[in-house]
Amino acid sequence: MRGLTLSELSTLVLHGPNLNLLGLREPNIYGSLTLDSINSLLEAEGAKLNIKVSFMQSNHEGALVDAIHESLGKHQGILINAGAYTHTSLALRDAISAVKLPTVEVHLSNIYCRESFRHHSYISPVVIGQISGFGAHSYLLGLQALAHYLRKEKNQIE
Amino acid sequence: MRGLTLSELSTLVLHGPNLNLLGLREPNIYGSLTLDSINSLLEAEGAKLNIKVSFMQSNHEGALVDAIHESLGKHQGILINAGAYTHTSLALRDAISAVKLPTVEVHLSNIYCRESFRHHSYISPVVIGQISGFGAHSYLLGLQALAHYLRKEKNQIE
Amino acid sequence: MRGLTLSELSTLVLHGPNLNLLGLREPNIYGSLTLDSINSLLEAEGAKLNIKVSFMQSNHEGALVDAIHESLGKHQGILINAGAYTHTSLALRDAISAVKLPTVEVHLSNIYCRESFRHHSYISPVVIGQISGFGAHSYLLGLQALAHYLRKEKNQIE
Amino acid sequence: MRGLTLSELSTLVLHGPNLNLLGLREPNIYGSLTLDSINSLLEAEGAKLNIKVSFMQSNHEGALVDAIHESLGKHQGILINAGAYTHTSLALRDAISAVKLPTVEVHLSNIYCRESFRHHSYISPVVIGQISGFGAHSYLLGLQALAHYLRKEKNQIE
Amino acid sequence: MRGLTLSELSTLVLHGPNLNLLGLREPNIYGSLTLDSINSLLEAEGAKLNIKVSFMQSNHEGALVDAIHESLGKHQGILINAGAYTHTSLALRDAISAVKLPTVEVHLSNIYCRESFRHHSYISPVVIGQISGFGAHSYLLGLQALAHYLRKEKNQIE
Amino acid sequence: MRGLTLSELSTLVLHGPNLNLLGLREPNIYGSLTLDSINSLLEAEGAKLNIKVSFMQSNHEGALVDAIHESLGKHQGILINAGAYTHTSLALRDAISAVKLPTVEVHLSNIYCRESFRHHSYISPVVIGQISGFGAHSYLLGLQALAHYLRKEKNQIE
Amino acid sequence: MRGLTLSELSTLVLHGPNLNLLGLREPNIYGSLTLDSINSLLEAEGAKLNIKVSFMQSNHEGALVDAIHESLGKHQGILINAGAYTHTSLALRDAISAVKLPTVEVHLSNIYCRESFRHHSYISPVVIGQISGFGAHSYLLGLQALAHYLRKEKNQIE
Amino acid sequence: MRGLTLSELSTLVLHGPNLNLLGLREPNIYGSLTLDSINSLLEAEGAKLNIKVSFMQSNHEGALVDAIHESLGKHQGILINAGAYTHTSLALRDAISAVKLPTVEVHLSNIYCRESFRHHSYISPVVIGQISGFGAHSYLLGLQALAHYLRKEKNQIE
Amino acid sequence: MRGLTLSELSTLVLHGPNLNLLGLREPNIYGSLTLDSINSLLEAEGAKLNIKVSFMQSNHEGALVDAIHESLGKHQGILINAGAYTHTSLALRDAISAVKLPTVEVHLSNIYCRESFRHHSYISPVVIGQISGFGAHSYLLGLQALAHYLRKEKNQIE
Amino acid sequence: MRGLTLSELSTLVLHGPNLNLLGLREPNIYGSLTLDSINSLLEAEGAKLNIKVSFMQSNHEGALVDAIHESLGKHQGILINAGAYTHTSLALRDAISAVKLPTVEVHLSNIYCRESFRHHSYISPVVIGQISGFGAHSYLLGLQALAHYLRKEKNQIE
Amino acid sequence: MRGLTLSELSTLVLHGPNLNLLGLREPNIYGSLTLDSINSLLEAEGAKLNIKVSFMQSNHEGALVDAIHESLGKHQGILINAGAYTHTSLALRDAISAVKLPTVEVHLSNIYCRESFRHHSYISPVVIGQISGFGAHSYLLGLQALAHYLRKEKNQIE
Amino acid sequence: MRGLTLSELSTLVLHGPNLNLLGLREPNIYGSLTLDSINSLLEAEGAKLNIKVSFMQSNHEGALVDAIHESLGKHQGILINAGAYTHTSLALRDAISAVKLPTVEVHLSNIYCRESFRHHSYISPVVIGQISGFGAHSYLLGLQALAHYLRKEKNQIE
Repeated sequence: MRGLTLSELSTLVLHGPNLNLLGLREPNIYGSLTLDSINSLLEAEGAKLNIKVSFMQSNHEGALVDAIHESLGKHQGILINAGAYTHTSLALRDAISAVKLPTVEVHLSNIYCRESFRHHSYISPVVIGQISGFGAHSYLLGLQALAHYLRKEKNQIE
Repeated sequence: MRGLTLSELSTLVLHGPNLNLLGLREPNIYGSLTLDSINSLLEAEGAKLNIKVSFMQSNHEGALVDAIHESLGKHQGILINAGAYTHTSLALRDAISAVKLPTVEVHLSNIYCRESFRHHSYISPVVIGQISGFGAHSYLLGLQALAHYLRKEKNQIE
Repeated sequence: MRGLTLSELSTLVLHGPNLNLLGLREPNIYGSLTLDSINSLLEAEGAKLNIKVSFMQSNHEGALVDAIHESLGKHQGILINAGAYTHTSLALRDAISAVKLPTVEVHLSNIYCRESFRHHSYISPVVIGQISGFGAHSYLLGLQALAHYLRKEKNQIE
Repeated sequence: MRGLTLSELSTLVLHGPNLNLLGLREPNIYGSLTLDSINSLLEAEGAKLNIKVSFMQSNHEGALVDAIHESLGKHQGILINAGAYTHTSLALRDAISAVKLPTVEVHLSNIYCRESFRHHSYISPVVIGQISGFGAHSYLLGLQALAHYLRKEKNQIE
Repeated sequence: MRGLTLSELSTLVLHGPNLNLLGLREPNIYGSLTLDSINSLLEAEGAKLNIKVSFMQSNHEGALVDAIHESLGKHQGILINAGAYTHTSLALRDAISAVKLPTVEVHLSNIYCRESFRHHSYISPVVIGQISGFGAHSYLLGLQALAHYLRKEKNQIE
Repeated sequence: MRGLTLSELSTLVLHGPNLNLLGLREPNIYGSLTLDSINSLLEAEGAKLNIKVSFMQSNHEGALVDAIHESLGKHQGILINAGAYTHTSLALRDAISAVKLPTVEVHLSNIYCRESFRHHSYISPVVIGQISGFGAHSYLLGLQALAHYLRKEKNQIE
Repeated sequence: MRGLTLSELSTLVLHGPNLNLLGLREPNIYGSLTLDSINSLLEAEGAKLNIKVSFMQSNHEGALVDAIHESLGKHQGILINAGAYTHTSLALRDAISAVKLPTVEVHLSNIYCRESFRHHSYISPVVIGQISGFGAHSYLLGLQALAHYLRKEKNQIE
Repeated sequence: MRGLTLSELSTLVLHGPNLNLLGLREPNIYGSLTLDSINSLLEAEGAKLNIKVSFMQSNHEGALVDAIHESLGKHQGILINAGAYTHTSLALRDAISAVKLPTVEVHLSNIYCRESFRHHSYISPVVIGQISGFGAHSYLLGLQALAHYLRKEKNQIE
Repeated sequence: MRGLTLSELSTLVLHGPNLNLLGLREPNIYGSLTLDSINSLLEAEGAKLNIKVSFMQSNHEGALVDAIHESLGKHQGILINAGAYTHTSLALRDAISAVKLPTVEVHLSNIYCRESFRHHSYISPVVIGQISGFGAHSYLLGLQALAHYLRKEKNQIE
Repeated sequence: MRGLTLSELSTLVLHGPNLNLLGLREPNIYGSLTLDSINSLLEAEGAKLNIKVSFMQSNHEGALVDAIHESLGKHQGILINAGAYTHTSLALRDAISAVKLPTVEVHLSNIYCRESFRHHSYISPVVIGQISGFGAHSYLLGLQALAHYLRKEKNQIE
Repeated sequence: MRGLTLSELSTLVLHGPNLNLLGLREPNIYGSLTLDSINSLLEAEGAKLNIKVSFMQSNHEGALVDAIHESLGKHQGILINAGAYTHTSLALRDAISAVKLPTVEVHLSNIYCRESFRHHSYISPVVIGQISGFGAHSYLLGLQALAHYLRKEKNQIE
Repeated sequence: MRGLTLSELSTLVLHGPNLNLLGLREPNIYGSLTLDSINSLLEAEGAKLNIKVSFMQSNHEGALVDAIHESLGKHQGILINAGAYTHTSLALRDAISAVKLPTVEVHLSNIYCRESFRHHSYISPVVIGQISGFGAHSYLLGLQALAHYLRKEKNQIE
């Protein structure tokens, strides 16, 4: 397989259930940024990293699974904050596992300071790594981690 | 914040998965009333309580989450029978928790007489209270409880 | 068996351990009403529902069991807030189960927002239904539920 | 220590909570004999075994503990059907353990065919043995077992 | 109820989340056949068995619940591979349980050789039986089992 | 079905693994009687009860299962001390359950004073009742219980 | 290794404990067919599939282990209904695992509708697949599955 | 609130079930002092600490709850050895929690050297602290701890 | 063995990990006294009790184990607040158990009001007793308990 | 009791289920030696140690129990590799426990590197010690350990 | 409190047990970089972020606790890879909790792909956030996260 | 890689916490030999086996980890009795796992006859094998096992 040029790298950022309310509700837990502001920050970070960033949010487990499937051939990596589905969705895990795109899992809050049922993630064992607890900054660090991983992988292939 | 007049009180009644089959199937567990009949009873009860009642049923977890989000600014309280999602949906819990609308949880059957996995509710810790076991009457008692709560709260604000 | 006339319907309201302190202690959890005030509200509600209401409170598990036994032949239904015995008393459960009088379980607070050992009720599987989280209003809704159930049952018999 | 004469052997039969309703309620589980009939059968059996039999029933855990204490110096053995307290009362266990009178545990029904919380007995490890599942006959077999044990023990002492 | 003629027998084959990727991804676990090929094999088998076979695949739990509801009056049996929802969806179970259509559960892989959270199925207790581990052949055996069951049942009715 | 005459009543006494060593080993736990002496005591008791008693001991789970099967048509009840198989053999339980002969479970020692894995019996839910803790006397009480049960049952049939 | 001709394919059908009573006992759970009738059906099915079928039933765990060992060099596949040993025998699992003959596990009843200790199978992780819930038809489907697997495997070798 | 003079400090010492037998039974576990001797020692210690000490023992859970209620307005602190109710009584915990009197929990024996069900105390989370394992000395240390706490608290108020 | 004179009694006070920060950090949990102040209070108390008190603090599990070993022949008793090692160190337990010096376990805070992993102590079963929840006063009470125990023991020996 | 001469020492080596296949199957787990070769090695080792070695292998739990019983009076110690019965047979444990012959437990593979259900041994608490993980060498070390133990014991007796 | 100048920001990087072997051993799990190389990368990253970085590695739990204590007054934040102590050290957690310095937890490997006892971290609930799975890059992202957090916090104070 | 000569084989014997007290304390559990005597026995055994043996004991988890690291290049195998750290130290496990030196785990006592928390070893899955229960002889057998393993391995390499 021949190498991709830098400009070809594209990633999908997936936001799970209730994240559309971000910044509007419970700022003490999730910070006061809206999802749009986070997406803007990610776009700026993507520009710095020379990586294209697309966005999708849904409250529907099935829609998130569909989006992961459709990223095949369109994106080279996925950045996901699966929200509540992190802890209940085996279907999301299987989707990530099936498309085999490098995926980074992020969380705004430190999930280990919350209820015990939020300590377990179905997704963790099928992603590259996790970043949690740094608010919107978790996303930016996650994008860096993903870009770094994809570049390194590409170099090994070429 | 200034008080609302009585006629401004509006509530959303949410029916979860499989409740559309009510009255048509398994009357020994859920009674022989259809969902439409229950909604009619709720409308009548709402009229007595001087409270507006809207209805929504879905078999889709995401659609129920969406409906909770959309009730912001439209309704002052929620009455929910989340059906099977009571026991598996963390996303529904987070939605209720995020919109912060007073919510009452109802069940037709006494869930403690059924399989052990129906004894746990993800929703219970984020609602005002629960009513279960009284068939369609659970809904009517739930609407009363919700109206009572909203009236009391309104009085404290004014 | 021939039907009872309306005026014959009589219910026993059982208050479990520590409920005698109601209104005097921990109003943030249980509200500021005393047990006497709740009983008065129940009497008024009973009058509206055309149902006789008797009261009994005890801190003694055995005394509550005795009271349930003695309600045979005197009352047609029981409304119970078993307090701490809800979670530890198998003897109360067996008493309810043995006398076979329709029973409604109520709780002032939402027990699912409290310590995990309060989430389990020994009594739930042998009662008609549960109502919890609405403060003193839980009792009034419970009495309605009980009256509704007894009337419906009586109609089916006649 | 010198031996007792046969006529000096006296036993206490303790009936726990709800057993006063025996024969009146739930005959499908516990048989149709009343507690009085069982006591009469035990008296007859005691006569055959040349052993005195006293009876006590209470729905109060504390009263049962008191009775066990008071049997010191009055009785040489205890036959107990602790009912629901079998599964919840550590105080009863400690009482039996403290007075050190040989005790036999009986149950009318086969407790292993019932709810799982009835499979565990706090009392079992501090008694001589258990007999369960034979209805009123469990008591008679239990009295035989107790008499047999006390006679054997007495013979070893003398 | 009068008997159906053979040609009236119709079944719905439901494929759960991620099964649309079959044959395209992870052939070492699921084999190299696509979902379309499996459907063709099922159609051929259905022809041999003189039974009509319809197909539906979705990554949406709610859509699968809807499909089960809609099969009432259209199909006489259901063949389901619920994929990841097997292990997490109580709503699917309730749907099968509510429509009361004979259902057979199939799995491509031997789920007992995989992660422990795949060993438990919410659906198993409400279906006729399970077939797992034989790749695409699981579906064909499942269709035979379903046809056999429906024929036998029909004969008993007529 | 017509009644049996008294002399037709026959029971099988089954002794499980390691019971052949009885009296020879560990008298502090199991008493000093040999298995032969116990069988003699049972024969004498059987004579008093006018019931025939046959004996079988085996260390082989399968041989005990075979013996239970073969008692069909030969015996009207079974008295079993399954020894270690009490706690590990589902096959014995299924055998008792399949032949549907009234069975009484006995144990020499009080199994609730021993290791926790001896507290659970696979057999208990499929027998009439259990007697444990009275040494060899457990067998004699068990035979009485069985005879009593068979006589009562026979009377109900006639 | 060179291929086998079709006529060389031979399978062993193993029936575990208590299955010799089939059809004679508990027809509501296991159907009314005797084991001999099932064997005849399997022989007929084997003839259709051009595969030789041998039978063995035992209530002895060790005898079943021996039979698996002896099938080495005589049979190319095993069809097993291990009955109660399914849930307790590690020795059977190790035997299957050691001889490495393709094995299919079948059950007459849907084991997931029965006691929870029947939900776990020691054998499942070492067989090709499981079929349960279809009565005697489970065996026939199992034989088909085994034949299909052996044919496919043989083709890959040749 | 104005301060109390020293002589106004009064405490209630509560002894739970079976402690009336102290010194009479099981001296190897609980020492050879009688309850009266312990009370005398406590009175002497109270005199030294200038604190009034009252005593109450009961085998009745309800009576202990009543006593705690009645200490309101009479005592400023409670010293409790709840015996077996330590491990089973939620009602006692709620009583302590409701009256909000500073409470010290004591045990004669080291409860962590005994059966595992004695390692958990329902009372521990609602008391100031625990002292266990020092025989009768546990009570004296407990009284000191309570006096120290009440004095410190009083000083902070004044 | 001849008795020791009073002045010969010597004890080691062991402070576990992070206790060096006492008074400097988290005064809301542990009080505002520094470890030095506590040691001074213990010295004063030791003087009153005519007992020598030595001190040692370490954040190293191994250093605490060494100190316990070295106290053999130097000290007659140990007072230990093992801090976090209370809950994780089996090596400390074995050290206490091996030197067989009477040991008292103390905790500043009521460990039963904190995280559940702090409710279990590896050390509790090998010490005389525990005192927890009284801040610095826990240490003083502990020293008294230890002195009392050593004096009593000495008297029994002499 | 007088001492034995060296030449009188005799041991029984018991091989459990499936070990007859050793060397023929799964050499990657169990090594390539056959059971006969291991027995020859043990005989040679026995000669060196001046100890007689007898052998027995069976796939039948009951046969192994019988063999242990029969070793009474014939052998002075047992070396056992119980294979799968290690993890499931309480009957074997009771047999070893009953005959009270010094027993050493050996395993070819390191059972802690395998499935979790192989980590627990019913036999371990009733044997002198365990040796596992050294292939056939485990047996030789086990024989040495047994001989060493028997010699030491004999010396203490003489 | 007045603000710090940028150059005053200093962080401590703590490496736990066995990390000194990094790059020398198990490169397939931890990558081929040595700890020195990682420290060099961190120094370079620190220079970019205008933050001072100090390093410390130890295999001693106590030494890591000491180092955390000593960072008080010297550093403004901690970056920690606690290695195996992540999962067993409550003392480390208490140290972080006591000094109250903002701390970021990093792991080289994705700990959720490893043994289940590595899924739980004692440290997670007391740090700002976690980063795991990105090899040496985890450290660099962690340093960024820490710098970002400290800058933001500083700005809020000024 | 070329082979080592026999004289080059060197092993490290590691003794964990509290083993320095051996022979001085608790001889009933660990025997009366001191650690020095055991080391002498090991040296003699090493001489017989033509293998060099070095010794190290520490109560510090970290010191044991350091010693394992330092054995790289110095020793070819490790013999370890990790004492209490066997059950709590993941750091020791990781150290053994990292240096990849063949390691044998020994225990003086039969750990399966002791408290349940001593039944689990963190080390077992990363060593060749375990030997426990034979007192000091466990060490000698362990050294033999290690020597045998290293010789066999060396032969395979040459």
